[in-house]
Amino acid sequence: MTTPPGGDGSHAGQTYPHAMDVFRRMDGLEALELMKQGKTPQTNLMRWMGYTLEQVERGKVTFAMIPRDELYNLIGSVHGGIITTLLDTALGSAVQSLLPSGRAATTMDLHTRFHRPVTTATGKVFAQAQVVHAGRRTATAEAKLVDATGKVYATGTSTLLILEDKPSAQV
Amino acid sequence: MTTPPGGDGSHAGQTYPHAMDVFRRMDGLEALELMKQGKTPQTNLMRWMGYTLEQVERGKVTFAMIPRDELYNLIGSVHGGIITTLLDTALGSAVQSLLPSGRAATTMDLHTRFHRPVTTATGKVFAQAQVVHAGRRTATAEAKLVDATGKVYATGTSTLLILEDKPSAQV
Amino acid sequence: MTTPPGGDGSHAGQTYPHAMDVFRRMDGLEALELMKQGKTPQTNLMRWMGYTLEQVERGKVTFAMIPRDELYNLIGSVHGGIITTLLDTALGSAVQSLLPSGRAATTMDLHTRFHRPVTTATGKVFAQAQVVHAGRRTATAEAKLVDATGKVYATGTSTLLILEDKPSAQV
Amino acid sequence: MTTPPGGDGSHAGQTYPHAMDVFRRMDGLEALELMKQGKTPQTNLMRWMGYTLEQVERGKVTFAMIPRDELYNLIGSVHGGIITTLLDTALGSAVQSLLPSGRAATTMDLHTRFHRPVTTATGKVFAQAQVVHAGRRTATAEAKLVDATGKVYATGTSTLLILEDKPSAQV
Repeated sequence: MTTPPGGDGSHAGQTYPHAMDVFRRMDGLEALELMKQGKTPQTNLMRWMGYTLEQVERGKVTFAMIPRDELYNLIGSVHGGIITTLLDTALGSAVQSLLPSGRAATTMDLHTRFHRPVTTATGKVFAQAQVVHAGRRTATAEAKLVDATGKVYATGTSTLLILEDKPSAQV
Repeated sequence: MTTPPGGDGSHAGQTYPHAMDVFRRMDGLEALELMKQGKTPQTNLMRWMGYTLEQVERGKVTFAMIPRDELYNLIGSVHGGIITTLLDTALGSAVQSLLPSGRAATTMDLHTRFHRPVTTATGKVFAQAQVVHAGRRTATAEAKLVDATGKVYATGTSTLLILEDKPSAQV
Repeated sequence: MTTPPGGDGSHAGQTYPHAMDVFRRMDGLEALELMKQGKTPQTNLMRWMGYTLEQVERGKVTFAMIPRDELYNLIGSVHGGIITTLLDTALGSAVQSLLPSGRAATTMDLHTRFHRPVTTATGKVFAQAQVVHAGRRTATAEAKLVDATGKVYATGTSTLLILEDKPSAQV
Repeated sequence: MTTPPGGDGSHAGQTYPHAMDVFRRMDGLEALELMKQGKTPQTNLMRWMGYTLEQVERGKVTFAMIPRDELYNLIGSVHGGIITTLLDTALGSAVQSLLPSGRAATTMDLHTRFHRPVTTATGKVFAQAQVVHAGRRTATAEAKLVDATGKVYATGTSTLLILEDKPSAQV
């Protein structure tokens, strides 16, 4: 077993790399289950956007977020970059859930397609991601952003490079 | 000429659609020049990320941002979604700079490729976008994120739908 | 009902636009069902690649192809462009199957991800495409290329513009 | 120096892997210069599409092709898959031109955006590709398809995985 990666909130300054160090010592699924229970450090971005991990199994995750107008673009809907951030998080986590300890995945590319505007009237949205193919060196995942009724607002795909012991390596 | 779209900061609540209403009454390049001068309303997202419009001409814009660790992911570099948000803003603005008043562009898809991690050590980064092709109904733009020495950290492309008088229309 | 669009093979020269004229007079699903029965004109490309339409319903199609080494790249597997051609055909047809007569869809972009090499040893492959979202002006579809056991070789996504009476219009 | 990789045309059957073996023994730029001189084996696909390598330097190549109606789709313009095949060839070659002997690049993904239809009336088209970023494990290139006047018909981007001694490895 592993110790929770510093769920005490005491992680100012250069904390994020430290959090990652802990993550890298753990099996991916185990780390994500701790995250789901709120026992892992949060980044400022996570707090600001307010997303949470709802479900996780090997190769499959769901994150959720409640749209606020603070996340809006100038056109009066949630900024496409914010939607992409949520999808990216889900896509990367779906791949991470398959990795043993000592391995990390880094996003090589991220492609989002927008189908409908997301607004505060949309209510809670869910980013559902699953792995399409995982090889030794790369993995591909796909995700969709849906509301509580299953209506699709955006879809995304991503290919990640799987790294061994080189967290911030240049691809 | 047009009046600045409420540069007084008094734009709480459902302000953003209002800001857009003003934008839509203006020529795209003119609106962006006001934005460059800081005379347009800012969204919370713009303030939080802290990006600014540095240069604008017809079909070509540059935004800048100073990386902070508040924008980090768990791996200790700026979250890919934040980089995408900056590129998206630049790509959309490059297209908007070509549009006459009464027309708006909405992002259909956004594809980002990540080449190197962006950290606080990177210093100020610049999202340079230009239009590749503009038709009557759609336009495509490309962008790159570089540092002060011109080193490339990410590249992105986007296709936008050009709308007449239907700001939040479903595509 | 409609007459089959010239299934007699007599379609040299500028035939293809003519074939399209016929297609445009038909409901999309109806036209694809004729194609499945081999009653529509074939392009040279279709004959050379040797793909066939296996299944079609509203919003969902499957094409099949048997890999031959004539379709190889220099590395000894089917050229990525050929795989993309097959996925593109499936993606476009999935959208077309939703359109009433008088409307056509034109591909705006096409994104293919390659997971494994396809060779003559792979045996028959299937390009399965389905529509993810269809709006008034655009539609998005996703596809995967699988073998007889369901193993995934490539995945693709595409957004198409929906045109009324303007077949070769510039987007 | 290296011997030309079998420019005698005697490469039926499982020749293509053999051609690749030769390619892999050569510096990438050197191999492409032989291809430009017509001294490398051609695949059936190259012959059928009729494209040629016009220019090559480190990180930058231009291929050319004359559109024929044999390459048409049902709408009466060159099939998007064919345009993608040409761009893919250029993108891959741009990366290959940077590689020393013993290394090969394999396409991970390919994203094409279509701006205008290509027809026989377009005349000779040129696929110009250049490398955007080359790391140790991956490289990204961008390309555009233009006519003799520089008008842009399509653009594409691709990320390739760089392999050592594992030509048909599963990514």
